[in-house]
Amino acid sequence: MKILIVGANGTIGKKVTASLADKHEIIKVGKNSGQYQVEISDAVSIEEMFKKSGKVDAIVCIAGDAKWDKFNNLSEEDFYIGIKSKLMGQVNLVRIGQNYINPGGSFTLTAGILADHPVDKTTSAAMVNGGIHSFVKAVALELENGLRINAVSADLVEDAKEKYEDYFPGHTPVPMDKVADGYKKSILGKVNGEIIKIVA
Amino acid sequence: MKILIVGANGTIGKKVTASLADKHEIIKVGKNSGQYQVEISDAVSIEEMFKKSGKVDAIVCIAGDAKWDKFNNLSEEDFYIGIKSKLMGQVNLVRIGQNYINPGGSFTLTAGILADHPVDKTTSAAMVNGGIHSFVKAVALELENGLRINAVSADLVEDAKEKYEDYFPGHTPVPMDKVADGYKKSILGKVNGEIIKIVA
Repeated sequence: MKILIVGANGTIGKKVTASLADKHEIIKVGKNSGQYQVEISDAVSIEEMFKKSGKVDAIVCIAGDAKWDKFNNLSEEDFYIGIKSKLMGQVNLVRIGQNYINPGGSFTLTAGILADHPVDKTTSAAMVNGGIHSFVKAVALELENGLRINAVSADLVEDAKEKYEDYFPGHTPVPMDKVADGYKKSILGKVNGEIIKIVA
Repeated sequence: MKILIVGANGTIGKKVTASLADKHEIIKVGKNSGQYQVEISDAVSIEEMFKKSGKVDAIVCIAGDAKWDKFNNLSEEDFYIGIKSKLMGQVNLVRIGQNYINPGGSFTLTAGILADHPVDKTTSAAMVNGGIHSFVKAVALELENGLRINAVSADLVEDAKEKYEDYFPGHTPVPMDKVADGYKKSILGKVNGEIIKIVA
């Protein structure tokens, strides 16, 4: 199976890539690294990436920014960072990616636990994750040619513990193997329209 | 209690207004009707509205557009209709409204059943509703001065049955009194950070 992973060099992307690389052909994509580069907040950049990659069997996105700060510090423009990147970036990856995915293929997007269980300073990030959840459920009703789509929504992950643990008091970090399994369930399984929630 | 209702003349807004008008002072706001006008997709228009209304005890939003169409017909710009209006319009109403609401006051936003149970042609509308759900949960953790916030998320409502029933096969329309009760629970009750789901 030919699997294109946007964010293949990220904290989660590295582990997902490693867990699939023995049996599948992985096309690594990053903002600055990988075989191809993409800026997911830019639809033109997404189209250009797919023109280079050609058709694939699975499109995985483990990328997307959103601004974390107290609600009272967030400007309207700050909210649009997450909207343009993690939210519409992933929507556009599906919109445009439909033309570059083989019948029976799958999309796997990334949301996060904040959609259901936000913490301090995540009004923007939570909003974006919640939007992804509902988008995935809705678009699964319409995809054609046997295409599937799911979102992986993980709690604080083990490899990001140092960076994020102060934001997530009391959250038990999820082992990276378990996170990678969530992506595998979507890519290699048959589930469709699901929010695959991964907690420790 | 002084209650500002954006969308007071809409299908749901009329019934919510009627159910509160005997015991409370209602400030009706609409895009083209009401005591004051606002275009909620425009933060400047929101600020101007609040400058005219002055401080209130409750801010209710039963307004906001999103484009309904097949996913394959929706352009990136089409998605931004809902993002700018129903999603960021309501976020901005809270951002800016914080300066025009009395301590202990409440915000009541409107999402909808699509967040959890989308139907055909609602990739954009569902996404926006899901974003509102998560935003409400997140911002409730941060509001100060005893402010509360909730979202009402109703199924197909009785008074919109004719217009929308073909989109919602098998959805039993919710009686308008029950819908209005959901808003009352948020405005007059003590609940905070809740998604008040209203089904028949």
